[in-house]
Amino acid sequence: MGECLIIGGAGMLGLRLAKALAAKGAIGGTQLDALTLFDVVEAPTIEAAIEVTTRTGDLTAPGAADALIASRPAIIYHLAAIVSGEAERDFDKGYRINLDGTRHLFEAIRQEHLRTGYCPRVVFSSSLAVFGAPLPDVIGDDQVLTPMSSYGTQKAIGELLLADYTRRGFMDGIGIRLPTICIRPGKPNAAASGFFSSILREPLVGEDAVLPVSPDVRHWFASPRAAIGFLVHAGDIAADTIGTRRNLTMPGVTATVAEEIEALRRVAGDAAVARIRHEPDAAIDAIISTWPKAFDARRALELGFTPDMSFDAILDAHIADEQIELSA
Amino acid sequence: MGECLIIGGAGMLGLRLAKALAAKGAIGGTQLDALTLFDVVEAPTIEAAIEVTTRTGDLTAPGAADALIASRPAIIYHLAAIVSGEAERDFDKGYRINLDGTRHLFEAIRQEHLRTGYCPRVVFSSSLAVFGAPLPDVIGDDQVLTPMSSYGTQKAIGELLLADYTRRGFMDGIGIRLPTICIRPGKPNAAASGFFSSILREPLVGEDAVLPVSPDVRHWFASPRAAIGFLVHAGDIAADTIGTRRNLTMPGVTATVAEEIEALRRVAGDAAVARIRHEPDAAIDAIISTWPKAFDARRALELGFTPDMSFDAILDAHIADEQIELSA
Repeated sequence: MGECLIIGGAGMLGLRLAKALAAKGAIGGTQLDALTLFDVVEAPTIEAAIEVTTRTGDLTAPGAADALIASRPAIIYHLAAIVSGEAERDFDKGYRINLDGTRHLFEAIRQEHLRTGYCPRVVFSSSLAVFGAPLPDVIGDDQVLTPMSSYGTQKAIGELLLADYTRRGFMDGIGIRLPTICIRPGKPNAAASGFFSSILREPLVGEDAVLPVSPDVRHWFASPRAAIGFLVHAGDIAADTIGTRRNLTMPGVTATVAEEIEALRRVAGDAAVARIRHEPDAAIDAIISTWPKAFDARRALELGFTPDMSFDAILDAHIADEQIELSA
Repeated sequence: MGECLIIGGAGMLGLRLAKALAAKGAIGGTQLDALTLFDVVEAPTIEAAIEVTTRTGDLTAPGAADALIASRPAIIYHLAAIVSGEAERDFDKGYRINLDGTRHLFEAIRQEHLRTGYCPRVVFSSSLAVFGAPLPDVIGDDQVLTPMSSYGTQKAIGELLLADYTRRGFMDGIGIRLPTICIRPGKPNAAASGFFSSILREPLVGEDAVLPVSPDVRHWFASPRAAIGFLVHAGDIAADTIGTRRNLTMPGVTATVAEEIEALRRVAGDAAVARIRHEPDAAIDAIISTWPKAFDARRALELGFTPDMSFDAILDAHIADEQIELSA
């Protein structure tokens, strides 16, 4: 019996992961009897047969990481981060939360390891933002990380720390670079990547959406459902199968904006597509042009991480998960 | 007129760089009127037509980095580090000096930038230790960094910070991954790489040396002379020619241990070669087997970094620089 700690447990992925783990009841060979959701805001209550505790705080506050580790959770998900735009606007905050917060967590684990031999599985959510132009059209597992944002830099540093703390035997880490989540549920946000979701999410419910880039822009996607699958598999996978390289690009679906729009047309017709207004935005186009288009995520596939089958499947998953009723 | 600050100024490369810059009198378009050598130990006096100041301290002590930046040096060389073996033995010290020290320096520069617009060229010495097996026989400029030591991890993080602080406009950084220095002058040390130098350095002066690995081990080398050339060029090169990727593998000479030995035989004869005792050491062999063998350092070559011509030239440079008299 053991505890699972989710740092970032009130977020979109954290909460879905918590529900998936509560339903599954076990992870990485540990029967779960406790689930702790830590975040800067209180996580909502979830239905679960096991004890679910919500805690709020700042991972970088003195003693905060130690307090989370004191109960020695068998598995830790570290999903918390200041997002890309905010880390770019507020340099100090981004480094404090995304770099120092991660390091505090790993150090708290190491100190407990030195005292007691504690060595938990730690799953760290990294990002495609670790990659930056110039990039090949299809990126392999050996591509150098050249982030073009402070957020991407902080994630790349987190990956390096995770690999070193794991190599030294202080913890059993695995970093997974999540594809861009599509369709991201909820309201439109200010992220440069927001339109990849909003051009589908809004028209599906009869609302307008703006497309700021050319329809031939290509990118790499996973549904929320696939992303949760990656996180669960990263908790379950046997340490000795991973090897020394502990950071993996997750498999995804490569699609152009035009292909997204055709998927929308198939399920919701021309009327839905007509809700998309093309308003080219040179600033967003410049950002997106430096982003990855597609990956050969061979190592993750070999290790059993399972992507969505197609962009159509991504759309279908959204319609099912969000219980959207399409008009005939 | 301006100041050059060398952090690690009492080290083997730091002191040679100081002499080279004192003789050259200018760097990166700045006429030098002051040279500051900072290190944990006092740097020896050097002959120079300009003012040379030596300072001792710990870069991670509160205010230490700010004090070095207060005089706003036009160019800063950051060569200081806890070496590989010590960073592996003393985890906390390695992270403190190699990661926190570097970050303190960059932060002190950023704070001065925010106050006054200060934006110095910063040359950071990185290392081949950022690379780890499995590696291709010839490593390109796009190879992922997968360090297999805490030292290599700390250098890789330094590279990422340098790139981000430069991208944000806080400083004008360039990181150079130095080949293994050969022949490293001075006494034998405990570094796993020490034999690459000692099997030449010791026999050249009539002393014995031990070879712990197979003669077919291949590695990547630069003479101290070439390394100083890289550091000077990294200070001189125009920022707009470097591009967004600010960390570069330096060109070198690839050679096997057998080729090293043949170079020794050509200049010093069979008697010198007979001074090398082959005592295979499985532990050293295991470490060395994960190291890079050769690079296609195309970007650095295009940017004008100049390697040694051959392994023979490396040997000749050592004999000239160390004023070794070969017996007939």
